[in-house]
Amino acid sequence: MAFVYSFDHKHKRPPMEMKDLLGGKGANLAEMTSVLQLPVPPGFTISTDACREYIDSGWPKVLDAEIEKARRQLEDKMGKTIGDPNDPLLVSVRSGAKFSMPGMMDTVLNLGLNDKSVHGLANQTHDERFAYDSYRRFISMYGRIVLEIPEEEFSSLFDAAKDLADTKNDSEVPVELLKYIVDAYKKVVKTHTKKAFPQDPSDQLRGAIEAVFRSWNGARAIAYRNKEKIPHDLGTAVNVQAMVFGNRDNNSGTGVGFTRDPASGNSGVYGDFLVNAQGEDVVAGIRNTEPLSALNKKFPKVYKELMDIFHRLETHYKDMCDTEFTIDQGKLWMLQTRVGKRTGTAALRMAINMMKDSHIKLSKQEAIMRITEDHLEQVLHPQFAVKNVKVVAVGLGASPGAAVGHAYFTADDAAAQKERGKRVILIRTETSPEDVHGMLAAEGILTSRGGLVSHAAVVARGWGKPAVVGAEAVKIQNKQAKIGDHVIKEGDLVSIDGTTGSVVLGEVPLSEAEPPEELKTILKHADEIRKGKMKVRANADTGADARTARNLGAEGIGLCRTEHMFLGDDRLPVVRAMILADSPKDEEVALNELKKVQKLDFYEILKEMSGLPVTVRLLDPPLHEFLPDVNELKIKKALGTITAEEEKLLAAGEQWKEFNPMLGTRGVRLGVIKPGLYGMQVEALMEAAMDLANEGKEPIVEIMIPLTVSREELGLAKSWVQAAIDKVQKSYKAKSKSTAGSKAQKPLKVMIGTMIETPRAALLADQISENAEFFSFGTNDLTQMTFGFSRDDVEGRMMNAYLEQGLLKRNPFDTLDTAGVGQLVKMGVDKGRKNRPDLKTGVCGEHGGDPESIHFFYKTGLDYVSCSPYRVPVARLAAAQSVLSNP
Amino acid sequence: MAFVYSFDHKHKRPPMEMKDLLGGKGANLAEMTSVLQLPVPPGFTISTDACREYIDSGWPKVLDAEIEKARRQLEDKMGKTIGDPNDPLLVSVRSGAKFSMPGMMDTVLNLGLNDKSVHGLANQTHDERFAYDSYRRFISMYGRIVLEIPEEEFSSLFDAAKDLADTKNDSEVPVELLKYIVDAYKKVVKTHTKKAFPQDPSDQLRGAIEAVFRSWNGARAIAYRNKEKIPHDLGTAVNVQAMVFGNRDNNSGTGVGFTRDPASGNSGVYGDFLVNAQGEDVVAGIRNTEPLSALNKKFPKVYKELMDIFHRLETHYKDMCDTEFTIDQGKLWMLQTRVGKRTGTAALRMAINMMKDSHIKLSKQEAIMRITEDHLEQVLHPQFAVKNVKVVAVGLGASPGAAVGHAYFTADDAAAQKERGKRVILIRTETSPEDVHGMLAAEGILTSRGGLVSHAAVVARGWGKPAVVGAEAVKIQNKQAKIGDHVIKEGDLVSIDGTTGSVVLGEVPLSEAEPPEELKTILKHADEIRKGKMKVRANADTGADARTARNLGAEGIGLCRTEHMFLGDDRLPVVRAMILADSPKDEEVALNELKKVQKLDFYEILKEMSGLPVTVRLLDPPLHEFLPDVNELKIKKALGTITAEEEKLLAAGEQWKEFNPMLGTRGVRLGVIKPGLYGMQVEALMEAAMDLANEGKEPIVEIMIPLTVSREELGLAKSWVQAAIDKVQKSYKAKSKSTAGSKAQKPLKVMIGTMIETPRAALLADQISENAEFFSFGTNDLTQMTFGFSRDDVEGRMMNAYLEQGLLKRNPFDTLDTAGVGQLVKMGVDKGRKNRPDLKTGVCGEHGGDPESIHFFYKTGLDYVSCSPYRVPVARLAAAQSVLSNP
Repeated sequence: MAFVYSFDHKHKRPPMEMKDLLGGKGANLAEMTSVLQLPVPPGFTISTDACREYIDSGWPKVLDAEIEKARRQLEDKMGKTIGDPNDPLLVSVRSGAKFSMPGMMDTVLNLGLNDKSVHGLANQTHDERFAYDSYRRFISMYGRIVLEIPEEEFSSLFDAAKDLADTKNDSEVPVELLKYIVDAYKKVVKTHTKKAFPQDPSDQLRGAIEAVFRSWNGARAIAYRNKEKIPHDLGTAVNVQAMVFGNRDNNSGTGVGFTRDPASGNSGVYGDFLVNAQGEDVVAGIRNTEPLSALNKKFPKVYKELMDIFHRLETHYKDMCDTEFTIDQGKLWMLQTRVGKRTGTAALRMAINMMKDSHIKLSKQEAIMRITEDHLEQVLHPQFAVKNVKVVAVGLGASPGAAVGHAYFTADDAAAQKERGKRVILIRTETSPEDVHGMLAAEGILTSRGGLVSHAAVVARGWGKPAVVGAEAVKIQNKQAKIGDHVIKEGDLVSIDGTTGSVVLGEVPLSEAEPPEELKTILKHADEIRKGKMKVRANADTGADARTARNLGAEGIGLCRTEHMFLGDDRLPVVRAMILADSPKDEEVALNELKKVQKLDFYEILKEMSGLPVTVRLLDPPLHEFLPDVNELKIKKALGTITAEEEKLLAAGEQWKEFNPMLGTRGVRLGVIKPGLYGMQVEALMEAAMDLANEGKEPIVEIMIPLTVSREELGLAKSWVQAAIDKVQKSYKAKSKSTAGSKAQKPLKVMIGTMIETPRAALLADQISENAEFFSFGTNDLTQMTFGFSRDDVEGRMMNAYLEQGLLKRNPFDTLDTAGVGQLVKMGVDKGRKNRPDLKTGVCGEHGGDPESIHFFYKTGLDYVSCSPYRVPVARLAAAQSVLSNP
Repeated sequence: MAFVYSFDHKHKRPPMEMKDLLGGKGANLAEMTSVLQLPVPPGFTISTDACREYIDSGWPKVLDAEIEKARRQLEDKMGKTIGDPNDPLLVSVRSGAKFSMPGMMDTVLNLGLNDKSVHGLANQTHDERFAYDSYRRFISMYGRIVLEIPEEEFSSLFDAAKDLADTKNDSEVPVELLKYIVDAYKKVVKTHTKKAFPQDPSDQLRGAIEAVFRSWNGARAIAYRNKEKIPHDLGTAVNVQAMVFGNRDNNSGTGVGFTRDPASGNSGVYGDFLVNAQGEDVVAGIRNTEPLSALNKKFPKVYKELMDIFHRLETHYKDMCDTEFTIDQGKLWMLQTRVGKRTGTAALRMAINMMKDSHIKLSKQEAIMRITEDHLEQVLHPQFAVKNVKVVAVGLGASPGAAVGHAYFTADDAAAQKERGKRVILIRTETSPEDVHGMLAAEGILTSRGGLVSHAAVVARGWGKPAVVGAEAVKIQNKQAKIGDHVIKEGDLVSIDGTTGSVVLGEVPLSEAEPPEELKTILKHADEIRKGKMKVRANADTGADARTARNLGAEGIGLCRTEHMFLGDDRLPVVRAMILADSPKDEEVALNELKKVQKLDFYEILKEMSGLPVTVRLLDPPLHEFLPDVNELKIKKALGTITAEEEKLLAAGEQWKEFNPMLGTRGVRLGVIKPGLYGMQVEALMEAAMDLANEGKEPIVEIMIPLTVSREELGLAKSWVQAAIDKVQKSYKAKSKSTAGSKAQKPLKVMIGTMIETPRAALLADQISENAEFFSFGTNDLTQMTFGFSRDDVEGRMMNAYLEQGLLKRNPFDTLDTAGVGQLVKMGVDKGRKNRPDLKTGVCGEHGGDPESIHFFYKTGLDYVSCSPYRVPVARLAAAQSVLSNP
């Protein structure tokens, strides 16, 4: 046999590895039949080879004979003959490509019925109505799918019959009318095809198989393959299978069963069944199902057989399985088995339990690979407990977890209502540092503008607080929000899901975040696996964030942004004084002021992370970010209400204003413009570290220079940093000498490195690494510059259109664009290490918390990833999985 | 001899190729002596090998003997002995590294004088004062340079002598005092060095040579090498040369001579000389020099010898030479010869003349290589005729040429004053499309903000009108400009130089642009050389620009920006209507309106360029650029003076406002947002082309999609373009069928390609080229994104600091950053051609007119460059030079 394989064919390899030949469904049926030896209704698969040959050069000559042979074997097995007027065997014909594909021909059921065998079916089932209804369904299904007759040609006739029977319920159409319908359907076929409805089961079968082959090149299938980048030359297989009936009598039934609880992960048997019913009836919920355990009473033999199958399935798949079965006149048939979906809690619990279960004995590695990002997010953040919610708007899921609260539109209102004990959702067009108290008070945050690195998104993620940002459909004005025809007034209840970006009106019940015991064990295993291979750090700017990060398993701070330290109410005036300074002296005074407060900040962070490295990024954002809004000041000026101080700020604002701040005077460029700035920051940092060292702590400092574009620029910046380090070390040494009894102060070893976040830095990494002991890839900015996508502008407005139209496969700010940006990361690592083989490399963009991106970073040879504190568990798991996938 | 070579040593290779060993100066002296056999004062060169050995392991043992030997040969040649009390030979000692290097020891003259030989010099010259003045100079020079005694130790003594002599003029210090000074100088040396001033000429010589060696590692020399990336291990050579004196008597003299006129390029002898004088006297202009021709009368023999030398020089160098000579007691000595600098006109004329001159017979290729960008700019644009001008501010030279006019500060004023016959310089903070009539009226444009692609810069370059932009020192307020303490009031005369970026108060005389006849010939030769290798196109947006470009030799339009077509007074309201459209129907109405005017624009351009390709870039800039200033509208709103129409515009402005427009919704992204837009543009373009084809013209259309980041995005955009092309072709075909007698309309072949201007497009050029028939590298944007440099922000504020501090070697917006951005261009070309070997590639950024960048583009394999019309001649020349340099 060249083209046709019965389900019990002995293949040389496990059928599940032969989807290329058998298609996905065919492989699954063969696996169940020949490997697991489950009671599967017999049948055969016509392979994709046959389909390819059909497409190339028409119906293969040998195929008729092979099908004939396979059909006879099938009839032998079932003890019935297709088309037998007394006791006909019915079969289904289904397509089954390697990948599940919408647009392909789906299923023709009840094939084998004709004017004679319908009587046999009626006799066998003692149910004439059942037989004619099956025949009617077969003709219309065949007519529509195989003969391509418009569906309404059949449905209009059936509607007429229902009118005659004065019912709206299909099942109440009496058998007499069904016989008329069968005749009428046959006439429809005759009119459309100029031929009678095929009575010969062989003709029926060939027609159905050809229809499946043809559907491979249907317009929808082609479009789908284009979109999903599935090759067009794979072809599809066709599965022909004996039909069984759970609705034949009261000795029949149907059900679904899980080998353990998919919700809790606990061991035991879970599922539902119905007597005298078809598969759809269980799912549809029309009739009340019985728990699977009750099967033991009604069909004890079947129950025992099923339990035995469950055990074999778990032993075979080493996992929890989800099954569909039918009992046909007391005989159990397995229709489908597959590894089952599960909740996050269940996934964790099963993984750990299965390591102990003697029939499974999962290895640590296998257990780790079972857990997904979704599983962790489910147990780490509250979720909508109800799945069927009416989503009125979708933004970007900026910080995972769900939240419910009363809508308020200003930070002050949010804070005040929280004081009164109300749960609050803060809704803003966008947020700024002035809204922080309101954000803190809120259960969740919703904005109508901004991308995944907007202020709202970054702050919310830092706190692990649910947030949806850039929900453009939400139009906010005068303390209310309009979404299409809906209005959210102040105080209205709103629910948001920061994982999916959904916005729902009213209160959606939440399931709380309750990580099971097993989470710890899994993460411990993950840490063991990635030990020495890939570290996980966190991005944190305060002592409190650092503590959270450490508790969640961070092995250091990969990015401590110093700009947040410039934004406090007490600091902003000093920062502004520095920017406005007319003389170097004034500038120095302001810098000294700032140094004091920065030192305190650094002290807290380094103290929390004692013994672990802390990478401090010197000031990055453009100076105008620390100045008030120029346009508001201009309006004040026009209205004549501007103060002298504000006039000065306006002038400075105009001076520092930039057309494209993202590409402007930021990062190390600031240092070139304000040469004292970086020195001040490093002095503050070093003094904090030296003080801590004096107190017996172990500060490990790494200083990072942002936005480098050339070796020379980095060399200059490094010279400032080194000078400041030397200055502080020297002064502490002098101090320790003069203080009697104080321990001799050993100089701290400090690493100096740079962000790689401009394409040029990656392209010239060999030169840049001459001046850097470590690289930290700033993949947010790198992505922005590589695509020319400003997140603030493009992400909200354009990204959805780009994703929906297939112009980009993924949002490159969620998952690293390995094809493009990834080339630059790889170039950066490889070139950087050419000149400095021990170069330490990491990533501190948002991608540092995205599993798929982490896999890429691991393969590319990065030493660590750094992400927001609440992503650390996900990153630990993903890093371990990367190690396992790339042995 | 291992280390020392006399100037007449017979080297195996031409000395000018041995700068590594002999240094630059040593090579030139050896070339003059041994190859050209000119009467050069004899001497010898201590090679860089000696210096390297000295630095590694101290004074080489064999060196003393070698120097002694060379010295004796020198004395033999001169018939004099160093230190001879009766008739001493004096020598000079000079450093001479491979590259001319500030910070190196310069010159010690008169070496060999001591307490005895000074008398011999006095006797020989019959000038005791000359002898003691020479000795005084020698001691202080030697003391300062070799013995490292601070200069003021000597100068304070000399000042005292001048006080005593009651004069401020060095030459009026009487010989008696000079003798005292010599004694005092010797004491200074004793005090500082604890040793007497060396009387033995051998000691003097060794001291001077060591000082030269040491100066190689002086701090300034090291810093200079660091900055210029000169290796530190080259070492320097030392040149010891007999001194001759043009000021010995009236049978002596000195002069400079050119082998032909460096100003006009005409043949003949040019130069100046003075009897009884030193070299400095000719240059200083204290005495009135005589023309070189007069030498024939006073020194007929010398004149004949010099003419002969000139001929030999031109024959040898195949070029005009610039010489320095001295006559010492009737004997001619050549001190320096080198290829001479020349004006643009002279360069062109000489190149052509030398092709005919029988002793030179320059080839076409050599003639082409002689012409530089500066030469062409000098002849193509007016220049300051005076070199010594007081520059009060320097901005970016945005459009070459000089201009003078009366300062006006608004476009209206400028236009009105021009009407009255005044020459005008328009001074603005920055310009916008509303200033265009004033810019057109002005002789030149000066702005205080913006970079080389600011509106002012782009428009001025397009018109070939001088412009200086981003002159930050110019503070403009209330119709006057302050520059430091200077004030430019309305109507004041101002001069600007758009080549150098200089701003000068008052009127600077200009030399008009008068290209000599020879320019055409040179460019014709250039075109012959680059034929089939690299084409030159122009960037032009109007019919008039296209005509200019064609006249200047452009072989097509490489970039026709369509946004300018959106900006006319008659168009802006329609564009705004399109943006504001509430319904697809309103949008369509506006688009149809726009189509009519765009068609006219395209018609004009295609008509001018009939037979040559025109690359039309579909709309690129973000929509908000077509809306009025949001902030002004906000102020109006605050003041309550806003109209209903303006309210609408304000809302639209807010909606389309972007934080980083450079990385925002531009280019093909606009097409995704406004799907009808690109179709409209292509229809207008194709209708114009089809009309022209009907009229017997030959339109060649290339359609370019801007800002591509992915194959899929480009594929979508291409589908819109193709649909519009098909639609128009079909409708013209139908029309031509229905019109009796009209010729059958053949469909036009249209190329569809894309800009490569995001790093991602270059990185994924293999995928992108699947959907593009040509690539045009937009190196402006590519540079912005690769560096993360917004030109509007970084170029004015930071670029100078970066260049001055050596953080970047070149402004990457002037000359392509081949190390970084160049990698992406190369990647783009190579990957693009992998999938499509016949991919056409070009560049349409500003770099397309920069010779150094053009060389890179040629080497990288681009098919053409495109630049502003007035740069076309420069690009034609540079392209030919690229071809010649890369055979």
